[in-house]
Amino acid sequence: MSQEPLTGTLALTVGYDGAAFAGFARQPGQLTVQGALEDAASTAMRRPVEITGAGRTDAGVHALGQVVSFDLEPAEEPDPHALLRSINGLAGPHIVVAEVRRAPHGFSARFDAVAREYRYRIVPGPVPPVFLSRYSWWIKRSLDLAAMRRAAQTLVGEHDFKSFCVAESAEGKRTMRHIELLEITTERELGEHALSVRIVGNAFLHSMVRVIVGTLVEVGAGRRPDSWVEQVLDARDRSLAGPTAPPEGLTLWHVSYPEEIWL
Amino acid sequence: MSQEPLTGTLALTVGYDGAAFAGFARQPGQLTVQGALEDAASTAMRRPVEITGAGRTDAGVHALGQVVSFDLEPAEEPDPHALLRSINGLAGPHIVVAEVRRAPHGFSARFDAVAREYRYRIVPGPVPPVFLSRYSWWIKRSLDLAAMRRAAQTLVGEHDFKSFCVAESAEGKRTMRHIELLEITTERELGEHALSVRIVGNAFLHSMVRVIVGTLVEVGAGRRPDSWVEQVLDARDRSLAGPTAPPEGLTLWHVSYPEEIWL
Repeated sequence: MSQEPLTGTLALTVGYDGAAFAGFARQPGQLTVQGALEDAASTAMRRPVEITGAGRTDAGVHALGQVVSFDLEPAEEPDPHALLRSINGLAGPHIVVAEVRRAPHGFSARFDAVAREYRYRIVPGPVPPVFLSRYSWWIKRSLDLAAMRRAAQTLVGEHDFKSFCVAESAEGKRTMRHIELLEITTERELGEHALSVRIVGNAFLHSMVRVIVGTLVEVGAGRRPDSWVEQVLDARDRSLAGPTAPPEGLTLWHVSYPEEIWL
Repeated sequence: MSQEPLTGTLALTVGYDGAAFAGFARQPGQLTVQGALEDAASTAMRRPVEITGAGRTDAGVHALGQVVSFDLEPAEEPDPHALLRSINGLAGPHIVVAEVRRAPHGFSARFDAVAREYRYRIVPGPVPPVFLSRYSWWIKRSLDLAAMRRAAQTLVGEHDFKSFCVAESAEGKRTMRHIELLEITTERELGEHALSVRIVGNAFLHSMVRVIVGTLVEVGAGRRPDSWVEQVLDARDRSLAGPTAPPEGLTLWHVSYPEEIWL
């Protein structure tokens, strides 16, 4: 009896400091998350590795729980802990593999994801943050949290988010998305006070979270009433929404998969 | 009736990212916290300003609630909010004035302080931190929290901490100090898991918090029993304590003054 050759997919949970990278997607001559991970994984696996990421984060955007996957070759059976240590030793100080899991052949970190959670950190008020300066958007005024929360509820559910993405990226594409949760909480991080905008959805359009945050801040700052956000949503026109919030406040926090997928 | 000339002292609550500075104390040709604050305050006040700090933090040590003070000259009456904005605009991105308060003539941020709180952040385990890498000590193994907490209790109260400071700094000096509180908690900061060692005391010897943390980690890592810390304390000999924990994990968190001192 011959043993079936062992193949499958490895899924790596990855964190990175977005300030160090020219975005997720590999680009020639640039330090990218995909490039750094593929180079480290290729060295560790002693053969070329191509990875797929759950979310193609823009330059400057951070990740705590990005998930990337790559296919194993027949009979490859790396020890997960050894691979984690090896890639962490190779990928440089701004990128960390927190977990290595095994999934069946054909698994894709991108297409098998059932939900993605992003968090956007804002520091409002006259005093700029010290420790959070790399990880937040400082807004020099106070924000009306209640108005922002009312406006946010308009966006929860299944909607056409064409107003809330990079206009060119939406041309001829389906722009319906489902937001499961959009909540705004106050937090203390590294001793500094911040607002955290937490968004969970099935998938996101290009810059969608940052346009949503930029739009909610228009309401929080009192420049627009909270009812304005529904008009923006209905118009399906990017030019009516608020500005795109800067990348340093955004973190891809978590990506969810069907629990039974892990081997 | 002539009005009494208005004099007094300004107390500034200051945060800074220790990685950017060669320590608190002014040194020629080096970027220091004292230098940056004195230069900014001198520009804002249009005359030379010399400041006194509550704690002379070492190179790499952070502060959230450092307090510095400087005397006002007769008839000087700066608007606290304008001064805060002005110094924050001048002092560079790694140092922030969070609050400006007025105290009576003769007040000293150093000598009137009644308690100082430091926090030391440790990330234990095989996965290095991403966002906390600048603000913590990564220890590649797990730590026995219960043993560290037992050992920590030995140090609470009034003791001679000669074993827990830079040996040369203790020569011929009084090394009795009072630790009011020493607690170790688990926290999640920027999404990453950390231990926080929180120490409150009346005053601290040079590197005292870092030697205490380095000693507690010897216990947590299982290299020493928790009873060893009492022997180290009794010996009054720096060479018997653990190593000095690295500066990036340490933050001067808060400095307390008698509440009635503020004008």
